[in-house]
Amino acid sequence: MKRYERYADEIAQLIHGGALSPGQRVPSVREASRARGISPSTVFEAYYLLEAQGLIRARPRSGYYVSARQPLPPGRRQAEPQPSRPRGDSTGVAVSELVFEVLGSARDPALVPLGSAFPGADLFPLERLARCLASGMRRLEPASIVQSLAPGDERLRQQIALRYGMQGMAVDAAQVVVTNGAMEALNLCLEAVTQPGDVVAVESPTFYAALQALERRGLRALEVATHPREGIDLAALEEALARHPVRACWLMPSFQNPLGSLMPEERKRALVALLARRQVPLIEDDVYGELHLGPHRPAPAKAFDSEGLVMHCSSFSKCLAPGYRVGWVAAGRFAGAVQRLKLMTTLSAATPSQQALSEYLAQGGYERHLRALRATLARQQDRALAPIARHFPEGTRVARPEGGYFLWVELPPAVDALRLHRDALAKGISLAPGQIFSADRRFAHCVRINYGHPQAPLEDALRTVGALAARQAASPQRA
Amino acid sequence: MKRYERYADEIAQLIHGGALSPGQRVPSVREASRARGISPSTVFEAYYLLEAQGLIRARPRSGYYVSARQPLPPGRRQAEPQPSRPRGDSTGVAVSELVFEVLGSARDPALVPLGSAFPGADLFPLERLARCLASGMRRLEPASIVQSLAPGDERLRQQIALRYGMQGMAVDAAQVVVTNGAMEALNLCLEAVTQPGDVVAVESPTFYAALQALERRGLRALEVATHPREGIDLAALEEALARHPVRACWLMPSFQNPLGSLMPEERKRALVALLARRQVPLIEDDVYGELHLGPHRPAPAKAFDSEGLVMHCSSFSKCLAPGYRVGWVAAGRFAGAVQRLKLMTTLSAATPSQQALSEYLAQGGYERHLRALRATLARQQDRALAPIARHFPEGTRVARPEGGYFLWVELPPAVDALRLHRDALAKGISLAPGQIFSADRRFAHCVRINYGHPQAPLEDALRTVGALAARQAASPQRA
Repeated sequence: MKRYERYADEIAQLIHGGALSPGQRVPSVREASRARGISPSTVFEAYYLLEAQGLIRARPRSGYYVSARQPLPPGRRQAEPQPSRPRGDSTGVAVSELVFEVLGSARDPALVPLGSAFPGADLFPLERLARCLASGMRRLEPASIVQSLAPGDERLRQQIALRYGMQGMAVDAAQVVVTNGAMEALNLCLEAVTQPGDVVAVESPTFYAALQALERRGLRALEVATHPREGIDLAALEEALARHPVRACWLMPSFQNPLGSLMPEERKRALVALLARRQVPLIEDDVYGELHLGPHRPAPAKAFDSEGLVMHCSSFSKCLAPGYRVGWVAAGRFAGAVQRLKLMTTLSAATPSQQALSEYLAQGGYERHLRALRATLARQQDRALAPIARHFPEGTRVARPEGGYFLWVELPPAVDALRLHRDALAKGISLAPGQIFSADRRFAHCVRINYGHPQAPLEDALRTVGALAARQAASPQRA
Repeated sequence: MKRYERYADEIAQLIHGGALSPGQRVPSVREASRARGISPSTVFEAYYLLEAQGLIRARPRSGYYVSARQPLPPGRRQAEPQPSRPRGDSTGVAVSELVFEVLGSARDPALVPLGSAFPGADLFPLERLARCLASGMRRLEPASIVQSLAPGDERLRQQIALRYGMQGMAVDAAQVVVTNGAMEALNLCLEAVTQPGDVVAVESPTFYAALQALERRGLRALEVATHPREGIDLAALEEALARHPVRACWLMPSFQNPLGSLMPEERKRALVALLARRQVPLIEDDVYGELHLGPHRPAPAKAFDSEGLVMHCSSFSKCLAPGYRVGWVAAGRFAGAVQRLKLMTTLSAATPSQQALSEYLAQGGYERHLRALRATLARQQDRALAPIARHFPEGTRVARPEGGYFLWVELPPAVDALRLHRDALAKGISLAPGQIFSADRRFAHCVRINYGHPQAPLEDALRTVGALAARQAASPQRA
C-alpha cells in the first residue's frame, strides 16, 4: 500500500467508524502534512482518492468535507412509497386495543426486533451513564432531593437550554419542563391545549402512541396527507385548518415515525407561519432529531416560532439514555400550564435520572457519542435496504430516510400487514404492521422496520420477511 | 446511679433512639440477666422503673413490651377538632389556582417548612440508597434498560408483593404497576374508573392534590363528613352513595392528609363491604401507612377486599426514597387498565430508581430504617404539640394522630387561615391553610402543620404562629 493510500485508508476508517461524520471538515492539507510528516502532494493524492470513492468532497476555498450520504448504486434504487391521501374527515380514535395486541405479541426478547420502537441497548454509553449517575448523586445536596419538583433540576434545564443555544435557538431554561420521557411531555402538551371532543391534526400515517393519546383524551384525529420524504402536505393542512375546528397539531417534522420523512427547512418555516396565522398550537415531537444521517441536525419547527405557539418535545431515550426516562418540553407560552399539569400528575422526574443526565452533559462527550451512533445507524440502514431491494416482492416501495432508525416499506397491495406480522412472529421476527399507524386502519399493506439493532440478524430476518410477503403477494388472502 | 437504674436508662435510650419501637418486646429477664451479667432481680427492678415511667408495659405470661404511645399529661391534653359537616352536594372543583398560589409562595428553602408536604431529607438513608443505585445498575442486563416498560421491574414488583405478604395480604406481583410516585398511581386509577363529569366521593377535608386531580379530569367532588380521629363517617358515605351516582371513592383510610385520622380496622372492613355492595371502586391513598407511631402497621382497606375493587396506591417517597419517584398501585381488577394507561402516558418508571429500590429492599434493613424514622416522628409530634398547647389561642383544637407527620389544627373561628399563612410567611414560616383542603374553601380557620423536619426550629416557629393567631383571634379581620 502506498503512503497516500495508507493515509486515505486511515481517513476512510475514521469516517466509517463515525469519528469523522458527514459534513465534518477533514484535516486541511497543510495540517495533515505537518502532523503526519507527509508531503502536501501525498495528502492531496489521498484526498483525490477519497473524493473518487465518494467519501469526501471539496468545497471551493474551504477544504475537504466528509460527504453527506452516498447515493445508492443504480441497481439498489427503489421507488419511494406514495404520499398518503387520507379521507379528510376527523374521526374518533379506537386503535388502542389493536396497538396493545400487536405490541404485546412482539415483546419476547428472543424475537428479531424489526417491530421494536427502540434501538439496541449496545448503542448507548450505559456504563458511563452509570458512573455519571453515581457522581451526580454524590454531588447532590440532600435537601434538594426532597424538594425536587416540576419543572425539573435546574442544572439539567440549563444544559438543555444550552443545547438549544448551540443550534442557534433562544430557548430560556424557564420554558423547559423536564418530564418522564417525551411521551409524558407530549401528553401534557395535549392536555394543556385541548378539551375532550376537540379535533387534532396529525400526519398520515402517524405514530400509534399519538393516536392512543388522542383516544385516551377523547379527541378526534384529523389525518393529513403526508409525503414519505418531505413530511406533511402544507396545502392539505391549510385546507384542513380552514374546514375543521383544529385545536392543535401533533407532528413530527424531523424523521417522522413511521415514515422517516424530514420536512425541508423552508416547509417548517411555512408550517409555523401557517399555524401562527390561525393561532393553532403545534405539539412538535422531535425525539429523533439528533439521529440525523446527513451532516447537520435539522432545525426543529420550534426554531421558526416567534409566538411561543410551538411546544418542542424531545428526550434522551432514543439517543443517549434509554430507561432513564428523561424527556422535556420547551413549551413556549404554554410552559406554565404544562408545568402545573406535570406537578399535578407525576410531580417531577426522578432525581437520580436527572442527576445522571445533567452530569453526563456537563462532562462533555455527548457529541462524540452521537457521531458514532449516527455512523452506526447509517451503516445499519444500508444493511437493511440491501436485502429489501433483493428479497422483497416486486412493487415494494421504500424510502431512504435521512435520520432515525425506521424504514417504512410499502408492499404490493395484495399483502396484508397484520397477516405478515403474524406470519413473521411464527418465524421469530417482529414487525410493526401499517394498520396501527392510522385511526382508520389504512396502510394495510405497509410495515415499519426497525434497523437500529446492530446485533440482530437483519439480513436473514429481512430475507424471511421478504419471502413471506412474496408468498402473500402471489396468492392474496386477507387476514 | 444504681445498677438497675443504669440498665433502665440504657433501655430508655434504645426506646427514645428508635432501636426499640412501640410494641416491640424488650429482652426477657432471663436473657438480659444472662447477657449483661446482672441478677434477675436487678433486671426486674429496671423494668418496674421503666413501667412506672410508662415506657414499657407487661403482658401477662409474655414479658415486657415497649409501650404504645404515652398518654399526654393532663395539662397538655387538648380538645380534638370537630368532625366535618360538608354540604352534601357534589360540586365542580376549582381550587387549583389557590393551591398553586399557596404552594408557590411557600417554596423558599429558607422558610421554616410547617407548610411543606414532605418530611426532612435528613430522615432518609440517602447514602445507602445511592450505593444501592450504583450496585443495582451494575447488576442490570443492558438489554433490559431498553425494554423496561410498564408495569415495571419484575424484581421490584416481587419485593412489593412480598411486603404485602408480610402484612398477611395476598397481592400478586401481576397486579402491581410501578409508577412515578403515588401521585401518578392515583391519577391513573382515577382515569381508569371515571369519565369527565362523574362524581367522586372524598373525605372532608381532603388532600388538595386529590381535588386538583378531580379538577383536571373535570370530575365533581362529593365531600363526605369525616371524623378527625376515625376517618370518613360511614353512615354519611352510605347516604351519599344512595343519593348520588358516585363512580369512585378516593380516600386515605390510614393517617389521612390533612387530618391524620386512622379508620379502625372494623370500619375499614365495613367501608370495603359497603363499596362492594354498590360496586364502587375505592382508590386508596396509603402513602403514610408505614409511618405509624403505634406498634403495628395499620392494615389498608385493600386487606379486606375480596372483589378486586380496591386500588391500593402507595410509594417510597414519604418513608424511604424521596425524589426517586417510585410508587405503585395494586390495582385489583383494574390492573390491566391501569397498566395500559401507564404505557400510554409515561411508558415506565425510571430504571435507575427502580433498580435502587429493588436492590435496597433485597439487601434488607428497611424495617430498621422505618423503626428509627417512626421514633423520630413520634418525638417530633411531641415537640410540635407542646408549643401548640402553650402558645396557640384559647379554643384551639388539635388531634394527636397515630401516624404521618401532620397536625390538623382548628383555630378559633375568628382566625382566617389564608391571612395567617401570609402573616407567617412574612415571619419566615410556611403553613398550609385549611382553604386548600376542600372544594368550597371551608376550613378557613384550620391549618395543617408539618412536624417532619427535625432540623427546623419547631418550637420558635409555632410560638410565632401562635402569637399571630392569637392576635387575629383577638381582633378578627377577614382576609
